[in-house]
Amino acid sequence: MTTREIAEAFAELCKAGRHEDAGERYWSDDIVSIEAAEGDMARVEGRAAVLAKSAWWYANHDIHSVETTGPYVNGDQFALRFAVDVTRKADGERIRMNEIGLYTVRGGKVVEERFFY
Amino acid sequence: MTTREIAEAFAELCKAGRHEDAGERYWSDDIVSIEAAEGDMARVEGRAAVLAKSAWWYANHDIHSVETTGPYVNGDQFALRFAVDVTRKADGERIRMNEIGLYTVRGGKVVEERFFY
Repeated sequence: MTTREIAEAFAELCKAGRHEDAGERYWSDDIVSIEAAEGDMARVEGRAAVLAKSAWWYANHDIHSVETTGPYVNGDQFALRFAVDVTRKADGERIRMNEIGLYTVRGGKVVEERFFY
Repeated sequence: MTTREIAEAFAELCKAGRHEDAGERYWSDDIVSIEAAEGDMARVEGRAAVLAKSAWWYANHDIHSVETTGPYVNGDQFALRFAVDVTRKADGERIRMNEIGLYTVRGGKVVEERFFY
């Protein structure tokens, strides 16, 4: 699959709300996930750890909607845009934000995801 | 200036339609500009060459609107989203497209711009 084909398939799953399926199918075993944040979650390495980060996020937010737009492709990378509307369970704050995910593909798998906001 | 400060200032100029001023002010002398395309324009290096590419683009399109959204920041990079509405002079085709620009900052200057679509 070309980067554009992977990008289209990955985006389609995200648009259907199946973000975890997208990861399951296209993450490399040594996926690296990089957030624009300090702390433990800033850089997470390996499929198990990234899955755990994702599970933590879903467990700690009420998801009202996540709308995915894209993909946008260049070389071995693609980007998606997410419009996120969630409530943080810890303090009840509702967060509406736009973010961009940048994905790097190698050998048909996503080896890095990097989130911008 | 932090990456976020540069990103905000760069985005503000783009939102005002002053893309060339943004480049003038924040491009490094050895800026590299990477398009998601084949050919001569795929990778252009150096301020003079990138300015010439930009001038070519403006000369060959009628610009109806370019709307900028962002910035989105992570580490030493930031992203902008552009909704472009132009007519290509060569064949009169009207092109409405969304693209993402990814900018890498070093020493207070943009050393790379990379466009996704």
